[in-house]
Amino acid sequence: MKTGKEYIESIKAMNFELYIDGGKITNIYDHPQIRPAIDAVAETYDFAFKPELKDQFLTKSHLTGETISRFQHVPQSKEDLIRKVSITRYANRYLGCCSFRCAQNIFAPLLHTTRKIDKDKGTRYHENALNWIKMMQKEDLLGCPAITDPKGDRRIQACKQPDPEMYLRVVDKNKDGIVLRGAKLCQTGAILSHEKLVLPCTTHRPGDEDYTVVCAVPGDAPGLIHISVRQPQDDRRTEGAEIDLGNIKYGVHECVVIFNDVFVPWERVFMCGEVEYLDEFNNMFGACHRPTTGGCKSGWADILIAATELMAANNGLRNASHVKDKLSDMIAISETMFSCGIAAAARGFELPGSGYLPDPVLANNAKYYISKAVYDLIRLAEDITGGILACCPGEKELKNPEIARYLERFVKGVDDTPAEHRIRIVRLIENISWGLGSILHSATHGGGSGQACKMLLYEFSQVMPYRKEALQSAKRLCGITK
Amino acid sequence: MKTGKEYIESIKAMNFELYIDGGKITNIYDHPQIRPAIDAVAETYDFAFKPELKDQFLTKSHLTGETISRFQHVPQSKEDLIRKVSITRYANRYLGCCSFRCAQNIFAPLLHTTRKIDKDKGTRYHENALNWIKMMQKEDLLGCPAITDPKGDRRIQACKQPDPEMYLRVVDKNKDGIVLRGAKLCQTGAILSHEKLVLPCTTHRPGDEDYTVVCAVPGDAPGLIHISVRQPQDDRRTEGAEIDLGNIKYGVHECVVIFNDVFVPWERVFMCGEVEYLDEFNNMFGACHRPTTGGCKSGWADILIAATELMAANNGLRNASHVKDKLSDMIAISETMFSCGIAAAARGFELPGSGYLPDPVLANNAKYYISKAVYDLIRLAEDITGGILACCPGEKELKNPEIARYLERFVKGVDDTPAEHRIRIVRLIENISWGLGSILHSATHGGGSGQACKMLLYEFSQVMPYRKEALQSAKRLCGITK
Amino acid sequence: MKTGKEYIESIKAMNFELYIDGGKITNIYDHPQIRPAIDAVAETYDFAFKPELKDQFLTKSHLTGETISRFQHVPQSKEDLIRKVSITRYANRYLGCCSFRCAQNIFAPLLHTTRKIDKDKGTRYHENALNWIKMMQKEDLLGCPAITDPKGDRRIQACKQPDPEMYLRVVDKNKDGIVLRGAKLCQTGAILSHEKLVLPCTTHRPGDEDYTVVCAVPGDAPGLIHISVRQPQDDRRTEGAEIDLGNIKYGVHECVVIFNDVFVPWERVFMCGEVEYLDEFNNMFGACHRPTTGGCKSGWADILIAATELMAANNGLRNASHVKDKLSDMIAISETMFSCGIAAAARGFELPGSGYLPDPVLANNAKYYISKAVYDLIRLAEDITGGILACCPGEKELKNPEIARYLERFVKGVDDTPAEHRIRIVRLIENISWGLGSILHSATHGGGSGQACKMLLYEFSQVMPYRKEALQSAKRLCGITK
Amino acid sequence: MKTGKEYIESIKAMNFELYIDGGKITNIYDHPQIRPAIDAVAETYDFAFKPELKDQFLTKSHLTGETISRFQHVPQSKEDLIRKVSITRYANRYLGCCSFRCAQNIFAPLLHTTRKIDKDKGTRYHENALNWIKMMQKEDLLGCPAITDPKGDRRIQACKQPDPEMYLRVVDKNKDGIVLRGAKLCQTGAILSHEKLVLPCTTHRPGDEDYTVVCAVPGDAPGLIHISVRQPQDDRRTEGAEIDLGNIKYGVHECVVIFNDVFVPWERVFMCGEVEYLDEFNNMFGACHRPTTGGCKSGWADILIAATELMAANNGLRNASHVKDKLSDMIAISETMFSCGIAAAARGFELPGSGYLPDPVLANNAKYYISKAVYDLIRLAEDITGGILACCPGEKELKNPEIARYLERFVKGVDDTPAEHRIRIVRLIENISWGLGSILHSATHGGGSGQACKMLLYEFSQVMPYRKEALQSAKRLCGITK
Repeated sequence: MKTGKEYIESIKAMNFELYIDGGKITNIYDHPQIRPAIDAVAETYDFAFKPELKDQFLTKSHLTGETISRFQHVPQSKEDLIRKVSITRYANRYLGCCSFRCAQNIFAPLLHTTRKIDKDKGTRYHENALNWIKMMQKEDLLGCPAITDPKGDRRIQACKQPDPEMYLRVVDKNKDGIVLRGAKLCQTGAILSHEKLVLPCTTHRPGDEDYTVVCAVPGDAPGLIHISVRQPQDDRRTEGAEIDLGNIKYGVHECVVIFNDVFVPWERVFMCGEVEYLDEFNNMFGACHRPTTGGCKSGWADILIAATELMAANNGLRNASHVKDKLSDMIAISETMFSCGIAAAARGFELPGSGYLPDPVLANNAKYYISKAVYDLIRLAEDITGGILACCPGEKELKNPEIARYLERFVKGVDDTPAEHRIRIVRLIENISWGLGSILHSATHGGGSGQACKMLLYEFSQVMPYRKEALQSAKRLCGITK
Repeated sequence: MKTGKEYIESIKAMNFELYIDGGKITNIYDHPQIRPAIDAVAETYDFAFKPELKDQFLTKSHLTGETISRFQHVPQSKEDLIRKVSITRYANRYLGCCSFRCAQNIFAPLLHTTRKIDKDKGTRYHENALNWIKMMQKEDLLGCPAITDPKGDRRIQACKQPDPEMYLRVVDKNKDGIVLRGAKLCQTGAILSHEKLVLPCTTHRPGDEDYTVVCAVPGDAPGLIHISVRQPQDDRRTEGAEIDLGNIKYGVHECVVIFNDVFVPWERVFMCGEVEYLDEFNNMFGACHRPTTGGCKSGWADILIAATELMAANNGLRNASHVKDKLSDMIAISETMFSCGIAAAARGFELPGSGYLPDPVLANNAKYYISKAVYDLIRLAEDITGGILACCPGEKELKNPEIARYLERFVKGVDDTPAEHRIRIVRLIENISWGLGSILHSATHGGGSGQACKMLLYEFSQVMPYRKEALQSAKRLCGITK
Repeated sequence: MKTGKEYIESIKAMNFELYIDGGKITNIYDHPQIRPAIDAVAETYDFAFKPELKDQFLTKSHLTGETISRFQHVPQSKEDLIRKVSITRYANRYLGCCSFRCAQNIFAPLLHTTRKIDKDKGTRYHENALNWIKMMQKEDLLGCPAITDPKGDRRIQACKQPDPEMYLRVVDKNKDGIVLRGAKLCQTGAILSHEKLVLPCTTHRPGDEDYTVVCAVPGDAPGLIHISVRQPQDDRRTEGAEIDLGNIKYGVHECVVIFNDVFVPWERVFMCGEVEYLDEFNNMFGACHRPTTGGCKSGWADILIAATELMAANNGLRNASHVKDKLSDMIAISETMFSCGIAAAARGFELPGSGYLPDPVLANNAKYYISKAVYDLIRLAEDITGGILACCPGEKELKNPEIARYLERFVKGVDDTPAEHRIRIVRLIENISWGLGSILHSATHGGGSGQACKMLLYEFSQVMPYRKEALQSAKRLCGITK
Repeated sequence: MKTGKEYIESIKAMNFELYIDGGKITNIYDHPQIRPAIDAVAETYDFAFKPELKDQFLTKSHLTGETISRFQHVPQSKEDLIRKVSITRYANRYLGCCSFRCAQNIFAPLLHTTRKIDKDKGTRYHENALNWIKMMQKEDLLGCPAITDPKGDRRIQACKQPDPEMYLRVVDKNKDGIVLRGAKLCQTGAILSHEKLVLPCTTHRPGDEDYTVVCAVPGDAPGLIHISVRQPQDDRRTEGAEIDLGNIKYGVHECVVIFNDVFVPWERVFMCGEVEYLDEFNNMFGACHRPTTGGCKSGWADILIAATELMAANNGLRNASHVKDKLSDMIAISETMFSCGIAAAARGFELPGSGYLPDPVLANNAKYYISKAVYDLIRLAEDITGGILACCPGEKELKNPEIARYLERFVKGVDDTPAEHRIRIVRLIENISWGLGSILHSATHGGGSGQACKMLLYEFSQVMPYRKEALQSAKRLCGITK
């Protein structure tokens, strides 16, 4: 397993092609837009080495029998599923931002579906997947799911789009491997990851075989081009701010990734053209991934609630009844998000031979609930924090000796809380609300949109046994006998 | 263990003093206001005898080693806690109303607190409690928690109320036992239960020793007077309606119970005057009980959703996009209620030697969420069902030959759904919404009001270790070093 | 103009065919299910004779120059539109239930559309409409809009339904008049009204000419059959309850009306077959009617809020911070409902020569908002009122001398509030929430479902000039020049 | 009256002391952080000169008889109040940001209260106010209400704060005038305004006389120090972005204003020490100001809705049922905000001799509703816009020839919508949501927090005549006779 420091070195050793702020950069770790994200990931590597956290963050691989990071584990029980949600809450509570450790959520579905295809088609995807997962575990590598395609006209299937690469596709195949062309958008953490795991972003249909590709690509494979996107307030990093960052330590980085004819050897291919397996595969991945959001969002919310409480205390309002009432509602939202994730895990079931899968109805319900609830969370935080959240002096003003004395006086809090402390807390709340570490964006579209989850929630619920029972009960109870 | 039939016989054999509809009645099972509730309970007794349900509804007593109903079990694992939520969902989905099997939720706290008091004070409460629980298990008795006091002026503690019996109190003690005087309101199922478990409805303070009493009383003990309350549409039972009942099989019964100097021997007393233990005890009971609401309300909702779907189908609107969207939201609410209950159970912990307790933050959160969410559920059901929900002809009109042909024609649904079927479904939806089997009332104040749960949610969250972690994280992340 | 007493006499003099509770009744005013509704209407007649209300409830007819009830007026200004919303709030605040005075909302659209058709087609509908309205004004008659058809399969247009009378239709025409066959459901107040105003419940399409009929029919015309529907807790009226009614004075009555070949002379026909005018006509009526709901629902809410406050006071909780907070939210909902109605009126415009029409976007928005908001209102009321709302002893128990003393003691409130008073208030809250005078049902589907209003809100907003302005602004502001 | 150009020149001619970005600047109009705000205000001056807008934006002063900008008018009718809401909606729809023209909302209360004090105390405040308002009208000056004090410990009144200037106060008085010391926070538009109107931010109590001061100060009076605050994404202005600004034309500017012993001559003082008049005065100002938010927020929302529709169209989803449904909800929220403002105006009343005041219950309700509703608006916008809202490439990347071709291809929309257009729209939505022109911050705390408005809504409603009527109705309806 890697320490945080080893992780950083390993990323430094990679050869990413990255464009940012209008130019191409080489030393990514030194770039102010990227370092906070690498440092965040590094912390998650260090968790496993802290004596008080070891029990939670270490486990034994069922594949190799070796001790591995729990973030690399293929869940083998409901308890494993629950643990994943819990440690993610911890990680996000520690970092105040995305913890980037979700690639493992694909492991069980990958093992399950590759076995199924191999059995039906005589392919060797399962062994490929197994080897890749063992490598991930052994070398303790960070993986980045590469999912979101440009999608073009959402009404039209992939192969009928006017532009043939609105979805990433296989443009060539030979005995050694396949060649990928297209793009993946909304790539959170791509530049922090040793591996990209290419996944289709939607269910494809017959005719879309070229678009049906699941494979692993080294993060810096030739032909991969990373183009940074803007994040709210990213300029503060560029200008060298500290206080104004809000979260002065960690953050995220997101980019567009261009696949400019990227070659992938067959050993790294896990699906290629088997369109009929995609629906189930995608749905299983969704079910595995979405409970995690119950952990990460509640961890994020823990910090937001703590910061909001500090702000209320600094205003002398900590025990005002309306403040306690609103804090209670923030806590309720946070714990409901967590509960939705935990319950999906606790009601999980076994994919025999592959691992455990959370309940798909509850998993999609978790993400749907969360996609709406975070706005209430932010609303309550802004309500309690007060007008200063949107009208807060910046650190340059605070450091300008001509005016500092005014700010120190007129922005201070109760009980001699210095103005600087109040400003720091305001900035942290800003960061989590709509700034560099916004919980909103992650909750709205990260891991599948609320709308997609709502539709899956509906569809999965239609085939649940209790649905039929309920229908029979309804008829029986009101006396309809046929 | 009792079968449903044996349960009915055992209740018939009791000697309840009951006033209803202005008179005193003797044969309670024949009374149309009560029979549906007794029949509902009887079904829950029969579950354990159905081959396909046995596994879920039976377990082994950790006290006696005997096979017992799961409804009598002291939970010995998180899995037991989860199972309780799940079987309650099943029971309510079967009955379309309250399943009355919550008394067991007090067992673990009772064992825990009595042991604690005995250790401190040299009392013998624990043995009393143990014996009573063993009897409940062995004889498979239904218990009814007797909690809600009249409360008088909510601002004033029990012993200072102008009327000394605004909270039930001990008016006499002797070597054989104690004498209780006062009343318990909102007694769901009192007349269906072999035993009443007397519990204080709030935390008392020094001075309130006489009000601090926990004990078990036979349901028909001398001095107990049961006064029926009105339920919405209870008259339909009196007039002998069938279709118009909505739920033609089951229902609830609620009453006020007067304790007119009821004697309780010491062997049945589990706490008497030890006011300092009450806060923890009440809170533990709340934590044990409230996850169950996630099960019962989602089971109830399962039927409401099924009935609403039937109604939409009968109107030709089953696949209208706005109908599917609203049904999805109903399902989402139902599954979130369930998730909140399941999560509280899955995060439970051991009270060493007594049993398992759900997570108190998540348990109170469950009830708080549910207390609000059911209104959205009903709103969506009424929205989809249409105006007929409030303007539906009654069964007498349907059976009047002069006009039946008109109703048969103008109230029928698509695909030859008879008017009678549509009316039956409308009545069921009405029953569950605001009628005899209303989910609203149970969700709003049953098992503790939303407000009480919100306050406890807040208080428990203040002492959780993650709260301190979050506060430290917030400061560390924004750079506040002291 | 009629006094309330004259109104009652005039209704008594009518010859309704009414089936109720399985039988046919003749003297409707003596029937306990109907009298409360007739008494409610009578009060609205008396308003105009109270010195302190005269100014509000009287106006001058622009058609005849005579002083008329404002409830019979064709609005001639925005102020008239606003006044309608305001007096309806007053009326519902006085009655605690529907005030039944909405027929006037059709007058302006009727004058407008009939003139338009006459001009295009050479018909004489406008004169018919004018005469009918003058008669309504002069004789001060109550009209009942007869709108909701059975509708059968909602996916299929009227003329293609398997059953040809799923929408009311003209089955015969001759030189004297037309003959109507079919049914109208959800007829609030039909049995209290001198006149039925037959209106299609949806936009029809070519082929549906026989279903496109607007006309006035005397309330007791031969061939009209009224079939009572059940209302929640209507049995309490039958059994002769007083306290348990909640609202001991007034209430509603609703029925299904069968049109069993009802003859209508041409002088009373305002549209017959002109399907192309129906869309605009229906939409105008919706726009005229829906702001009124802002008045009636806020008037209703005024009483609910007052009753809930009384209940809180009786519990000693009037000044508890969470109670004040919830009351504030009830008030906010009520005033927002009112605001939506007032604003639609205040932004009204002239239909030249016919009258004033409220803003159709704001009018539909009002009803959509209200259709959801009332559930929050009821939720808050039940929250504050407490568990007694669902577990309240009935009046028969209260009057039973054997147990009265217990109830008097254990149900009393603070400051010697008698148990009976608390029970009366509980019953009133019950009545307004889901009982005989439920605000929910009226708000959900009365005057058009929330869903229908939402769709119209969208459609009307698409053609508003500010929509184009906003689109241009958006492009201009972000620099899209084409 | 001033044209936009004249306005700009007049501001350029002023001598503001302004600190921004760590330094002191002199030429404010050239500063990229300020120019967009000055340009926005200039547009509002030009409205009055556009032939098609003249009717709306001009009126006649009731004080001087001269034609003036409607933004300088003392409302003389309900129609004037309604017009204010409407033109503000127009202005914000034009600008996509705050329109800065709210100072007039204080005019009527100022005239009313000064007359009252003069009458009681023999002061000359009214003449001062009258002269100042006439000057504002004649010279067409922009005023900035200077309200928000630092407030220190919110539990403690002004005169008892440990620091005596936590509220702005009068530190000296002489025959010529008074001297002010302290600070005003959250000063939107201070640097764009000719005049500051100093107002207390809360009701003071006896002992706080020195803090009870209302007066007008030239925007650049000696002793005034302006310290810029950071706004989300303000750096994009500094770096010279265009596309990435979102709103490439207009924006806001906010600052802290230090009053470093500012002298104000008596002619400009309107209240000084008369603490007993402050409560009513503040409440009247709140009532006058808050309906305007119904106009500005709905104008803002008009653009957000238009931009969101464009985005949906560019994704091929314009007619997807869930998109139309969500757009309908955005429209409903927007029109409800507008309705709340309009209704408060339409229910206004006369302050005899001074002007018209909106209904205070409805005015506070408007702001309370809006303070919550905007979060739903933003949630729906982000939902529809998709993941790109948080992961959108910046303009520098778009202009980098090495990668532009990738972005042009993979970010384009349907029907050849160029990537640049999609990015521009995304940036506009970002700007309005949580960026430089965020509607959230303005809605949450601008013009009084939601919490303050909720409390005032409650208090005002307690003294409304209909409250007493409702209480009497409630008792009468349920039969409580005493």
